[in-house]
Amino acid sequence: MSHAPIFVVAGVGDGSGTGGAAARLFAKNGYRVAVISRGQASTTKVAEEIKAAGGEAAPFPITAYTYEEIHLAFESLKNHWKDSEIRVTLFNAGVGVWKGFLDITEQDLQSTLDNNVVASFAFARESILAFKESSITNGKKGTLLFTGATAALRGNKITSAFSAGKHAIRALSQSLGKEFGPQDIHVAHVIIDGLILTDTNKKSKNSPEWEKNEAARLDPESIAKSYLYLANQDRSSWTWELDLRPAHENW
Amino acid sequence: MSHAPIFVVAGVGDGSGTGGAAARLFAKNGYRVAVISRGQASTTKVAEEIKAAGGEAAPFPITAYTYEEIHLAFESLKNHWKDSEIRVTLFNAGVGVWKGFLDITEQDLQSTLDNNVVASFAFARESILAFKESSITNGKKGTLLFTGATAALRGNKITSAFSAGKHAIRALSQSLGKEFGPQDIHVAHVIIDGLILTDTNKKSKNSPEWEKNEAARLDPESIAKSYLYLANQDRSSWTWELDLRPAHENW
Amino acid sequence: MSHAPIFVVAGVGDGSGTGGAAARLFAKNGYRVAVISRGQASTTKVAEEIKAAGGEAAPFPITAYTYEEIHLAFESLKNHWKDSEIRVTLFNAGVGVWKGFLDITEQDLQSTLDNNVVASFAFARESILAFKESSITNGKKGTLLFTGATAALRGNKITSAFSAGKHAIRALSQSLGKEFGPQDIHVAHVIIDGLILTDTNKKSKNSPEWEKNEAARLDPESIAKSYLYLANQDRSSWTWELDLRPAHENW
Amino acid sequence: MSHAPIFVVAGVGDGSGTGGAAARLFAKNGYRVAVISRGQASTTKVAEEIKAAGGEAAPFPITAYTYEEIHLAFESLKNHWKDSEIRVTLFNAGVGVWKGFLDITEQDLQSTLDNNVVASFAFARESILAFKESSITNGKKGTLLFTGATAALRGNKITSAFSAGKHAIRALSQSLGKEFGPQDIHVAHVIIDGLILTDTNKKSKNSPEWEKNEAARLDPESIAKSYLYLANQDRSSWTWELDLRPAHENW
Repeated sequence: MSHAPIFVVAGVGDGSGTGGAAARLFAKNGYRVAVISRGQASTTKVAEEIKAAGGEAAPFPITAYTYEEIHLAFESLKNHWKDSEIRVTLFNAGVGVWKGFLDITEQDLQSTLDNNVVASFAFARESILAFKESSITNGKKGTLLFTGATAALRGNKITSAFSAGKHAIRALSQSLGKEFGPQDIHVAHVIIDGLILTDTNKKSKNSPEWEKNEAARLDPESIAKSYLYLANQDRSSWTWELDLRPAHENW
Repeated sequence: MSHAPIFVVAGVGDGSGTGGAAARLFAKNGYRVAVISRGQASTTKVAEEIKAAGGEAAPFPITAYTYEEIHLAFESLKNHWKDSEIRVTLFNAGVGVWKGFLDITEQDLQSTLDNNVVASFAFARESILAFKESSITNGKKGTLLFTGATAALRGNKITSAFSAGKHAIRALSQSLGKEFGPQDIHVAHVIIDGLILTDTNKKSKNSPEWEKNEAARLDPESIAKSYLYLANQDRSSWTWELDLRPAHENW
Repeated sequence: MSHAPIFVVAGVGDGSGTGGAAARLFAKNGYRVAVISRGQASTTKVAEEIKAAGGEAAPFPITAYTYEEIHLAFESLKNHWKDSEIRVTLFNAGVGVWKGFLDITEQDLQSTLDNNVVASFAFARESILAFKESSITNGKKGTLLFTGATAALRGNKITSAFSAGKHAIRALSQSLGKEFGPQDIHVAHVIIDGLILTDTNKKSKNSPEWEKNEAARLDPESIAKSYLYLANQDRSSWTWELDLRPAHENW
Repeated sequence: MSHAPIFVVAGVGDGSGTGGAAARLFAKNGYRVAVISRGQASTTKVAEEIKAAGGEAAPFPITAYTYEEIHLAFESLKNHWKDSEIRVTLFNAGVGVWKGFLDITEQDLQSTLDNNVVASFAFARESILAFKESSITNGKKGTLLFTGATAALRGNKITSAFSAGKHAIRALSQSLGKEFGPQDIHVAHVIIDGLILTDTNKKSKNSPEWEKNEAARLDPESIAKSYLYLANQDRSSWTWELDLRPAHENW
C-alpha cells in the first residue's frame, strides 16, 4: 500500500475531547482522517485544524448514528480517498443520561440505545467490511477501537440506561474480537475511568486546580496515545481491553 | 394484606419453559398469576393450566414488549385483582439471534434491543412503580427477577447482538438493585448457563438420553424454585445474582 | 442411606456467626454436625448447644488449619459416625488482616495464606475424598460450600493480603466446581457483602439501631438458610456462586 | 536524576521468555537492568547478553523467592548502582502446577503459594519502598508490573493451585494500584492469554509452523513492548490491567 492509511473516527463532540485528540494524533502519524460526527460545524472544525497543522482530513457529518447514515459516510470517505485503505476506526460516540431510574423516559432509553448500541453495531459493520478488503499490513487488516467507560463493567444508581448501553458495546467488542481476530482484524475496548479534560468538563468543574493537576483528570491526548499504541500492536500480542484512569483517581 | 399476592411473569413462550414453570410454582404457593406474553394462545394456555390445577391466573396478552403495551397490561392486571398487591415480577422475555456478526441485520439488532432492553426497562418500570405502592411484607415491598444468560457475562463469536442485549439487562438489574434495595425492593438476576428442557429444545436435540439425564439439562421447574427462593429471602441477606447450570455441564 | 447425613463445618469463631448458625440449621434439618474449629471451647460450645436443642453434634477441635490436622479431624468424625455419610461441608474459616500494604508483615501474609488458602485446599481435599465414597442422594454425592467475601472479587486499599486469600479461595471453588460437577459433587461459593450480626461486630459497632435494623446487617441465620438452599438444589440446576447483602446496603 | 534509571526483573527462567525479553528491551531503552532469578546461570546469562549488546546489567541470583532473599537482592542492587533510582520493576516469577485437584499435594500448593503469592508480596514491598525514595520523573515515582495469566481471571479443571496463586497476585496488584496511585506509583497487571514462544514451549510443541506463525503464539519481545508502554504512560491516564493474546487465538 503506497498511499496514506485512513483513520475513521465517529464522535468528536466539540473537538476538545477524545475523538478530536485521536483525530489529531493519527493525522500526525500519517493517517488521512475521516471525521464522522453529528453536525457540520464540529466535523469541519476538527478537519480544518488537522489540515492547518499540515495533516490530511475531511469532515463527514451525519445527522444521526443510523445504519444508513453511517453507511453513506463510509461510502463518501472511501470515495474521497479512493487510493487508500481504511486501517483504523474508532467508535467514540454514545453519550448517555444520568438519572434515577424512574426519571428515565422511553425517549431517553431509545436515544441511549440508538446512540450507543445501534450506532456501534452500524459503525462496526462498516469497519469490518472495509477491513476485509484491506491488505495485511504490520500483521493486521485493521484495528477497530471502542471508547468504553466504567459503566461498561458495573451498573450504578443513576446509570441504568447509560450502563446498559456501555455494557452492550463492551459485549459487542468482545464478540467481534473473538470472531475477527482469526481474520486478522484487531478489536479493542478501552475503559475510561475518570473525568476527561474536555471543554465541557472544564466549564462544569470550573476549577483551575483540577485542570492543572495532571494526576486528577484524563488528558484526551494521553487517551489518544493509547489508541495509537493499540493500533500498532503486532499480531503476536493484541490487547482486547485496557483501562485508563488518572494517577490519583480514587477507585 | 389479606388477599393473595400477585406474581407477574413476562415471557412464557409455549408454556413449557422457565416462564410457564415459574407461573405454576408461584400459583401453587398462593400467588395470583398474571401471564404477560406475546400471543393470546400461550398466555391463555398457561393461565388455564393453573386454574385447572386449582390456582388463580389470568392472561394479559400483548403484541409487542413496548412501554405502552406493558403499561396497559399492568393496568389491566391491577384492575383485574383490585384487592391484591403485586409482590413478585419476573422478566423472562428476550430471545435473540445467533449469527455471525456480518449476518446480523439492522432489523435483527433492533428486534433484539426491543425484546430485551426496551422490554426489560418497560417491565422494570411498571414493577418498581407497583412495588412502591405496596406494603412491606416479609421485609420487602416486592421482588423483581430477571432471567439472564451466560451471554450476559461474555460476548462470543455468534452472540454479538444477543450478548449485547443480555449484558444490558444485567446492567439494568444491577443499577436497580443498588437504587431500590434501600427502598425495600429486591432485584435479582439469574444466569442460566446451559440448555433448558423446553419442548423446543427437546425437538431440536431429539435425544431421549439428554431428556432423561437430569444432570445434562436445566429443568424449568428447578429454575422456578430458585426464583421462589429469591422472592422469599429475608431482608438481612438478599442475592443480586446467582448462576444455575446442570451438574454435568462443561463450563 | 438409612442414617443421618453428616454436615461438617470448619470455622465457627465464637459460635455467634455464620459457622455456628449453619451448624444449628443443618442440625435442625436432620444432619449430624461435626464442628471443626480452632479451640476446644468454641467447638464444644457449638456442639453442646445443638445437643441441648435435640440435635446431634460433636466437636473436633484443631490447633491450626493444616493438612494434617484437618485430615485427622475428618478421620475422627468419620470414626465417630461410622454409619453415616458426609453430605455437606462448609469452609467458613479464614479471617484476614486489614492494613495498609506496607504494614503487612511477612507473618501477616503467611498467616492469611495458611488460614485461607492452605486451609481451604486441605478442607476441600478431605471433603471431595469423602464425597467420592458417598452414594448419590437427591442427585448428588455431596455439597462443598465456601464462605466468600466481596474481597474475593476486588482488591482494595487495605485488603491486599485478605483479598489475595479470598481471591484464591474463589479460584479454588470455581476449579472444583468445573472438575467435580461431572462427578456429582456440587461446589458453591457465597459472596458475603456486608457486615454480619456477630457478637464481635455488635461490640465493635455498639449500635442498638444497627442491631435492630434487619436491612442493615447480615443475619447469620439467614446466611445459613442460603447454604441449606444450595445443599438442596437438584442436579438439573446447581449454583456455583451467589452474593448476599442486607437490603439497604450501599454497594 | 542524572543517572540511568534501574529496571528490576524477577523471574527470567532460561532467558528466552518474557523476563529476558523485558530485560533486554529496558536495557536498550537506557535502563540499568537488575536480574533477579533463581540460579546463578540464568541471571548471569541474561546480564551478560545485555552487556554484550552495549547495555548495563548485573545478576542478583537468589535461591528462593523469600522476603529475606528478595530484600537482600534489592539491597545488593541498590548498592551496586548507588547513583541510580529504581524506576520500573517487573514481577515475572511464579510458575505453577497443572494437575487434577486430588493430585495436587500439600507441597505443590505450598510451592505455588511461595513462588507466586509470597514472592509477589515480597517483591512488591521492596519495589514500593524503593519507589517512595524516588523523585517524580515523567509524572511518576515508579512502575510496578506484574505478569498475569488467564488463570488470574478464572479457575479451571486442572488449575486449582495455579489459578489460586494467579488470582492472589491480581488481587494484590489491584489493591496496590488503588493504594499507591495517589502516591504517584503506578501498578499494572498484564493478562497473558496464550502460549509464549519460549525455548521450553518450542521444545514441547515441536512445531515449526507454530513457531513461524506470529498470529499463533505470543512473542516475548512483543510482551516486553507492552511493559515499556505501561512504564511510559503519563500520569493523566494509567492502565491497571490489559490482556495480550495472539491474533488468531481462540478465546
